[in-house]
Amino acid sequence: MARSSSTMQLTRAADYGIRVMIHMATLPAHERALLPALARATSAPQSFLSKVLQALCRAGFIVSRRGQAGGFEILPAGRKASVRSVIEAIEGPISLNLCLVSGASCKRKSFCPAHPVWASAQEAMMGVLNAATIADLALQPATPQLRSLRAKSKPA
Amino acid sequence: MARSSSTMQLTRAADYGIRVMIHMATLPAHERALLPALARATSAPQSFLSKVLQALCRAGFIVSRRGQAGGFEILPAGRKASVRSVIEAIEGPISLNLCLVSGASCKRKSFCPAHPVWASAQEAMMGVLNAATIADLALQPATPQLRSLRAKSKPA
Repeated sequence: MARSSSTMQLTRAADYGIRVMIHMATLPAHERALLPALARATSAPQSFLSKVLQALCRAGFIVSRRGQAGGFEILPAGRKASVRSVIEAIEGPISLNLCLVSGASCKRKSFCPAHPVWASAQEAMMGVLNAATIADLALQPATPQLRSLRAKSKPA
Repeated sequence: MARSSSTMQLTRAADYGIRVMIHMATLPAHERALLPALARATSAPQSFLSKVLQALCRAGFIVSRRGQAGGFEILPAGRKASVRSVIEAIEGPISLNLCLVSGASCKRKSFCPAHPVWASAQEAMMGVLNAATIADLALQPATPQLRSLRAKSKPA
């Protein structure tokens, strides 16, 4: 088959979403950041990141404030959010296979010998993604490279 | 974002690959099956399944025999294969995120606070996919629906 590297792979949008949430969680409460600064801090293309930020606003994890002191601001719900909930805010429910989508997604699932394997693999993965919160990840000590990226995202 | 349901999702090709391998592992040693029978047993479209079978042949998990008694036959290596190795034979290495692709896939991975989460999530999922072998899954007791599908795949 075509050697696509995308089987079971996170989308770029979700990856940037996690990056930007962690970065925003390192900022003091109520501090606002502008799109160009967030794009620099996360090494993400601005136009793409803009759509990700819209999804995070809709999920109630961040808000966009207008005006001279405007910008994006993380909300307490965003700091408390798990990695899983941020991914799902951007991409919808995670399902390692179609048969794990809720509802009658595959007529074989009641008897398919592989179905329990997909369910166990998803459960194992979700355990990790549920346990990691944005606030915890933002508390990780920053390396010099990360401090430098974060500094570049400060207003001049 | 677009509510694609494909983030972190197995491809249809890999799903059919696992289905067909499990089905073939329920057949006696050296029994051969034709493409239409395999498509019926796995509820997969023939033309698509044909490409999956080619990938499984290239991986050395099955062989295609020509002639009047020809057809696809599972090899001992295919019975012993793990779910992970069958997926990877079809789609290439599984990487939950780009930063887990071997080589310098993301320049942030040495300092990104999210990287260890992706690595742990992948490790947890791989544990399940490595542990489940095709032979084990083929030994699961068949439900009436599965027996019926398997019966339909016998030569008339």
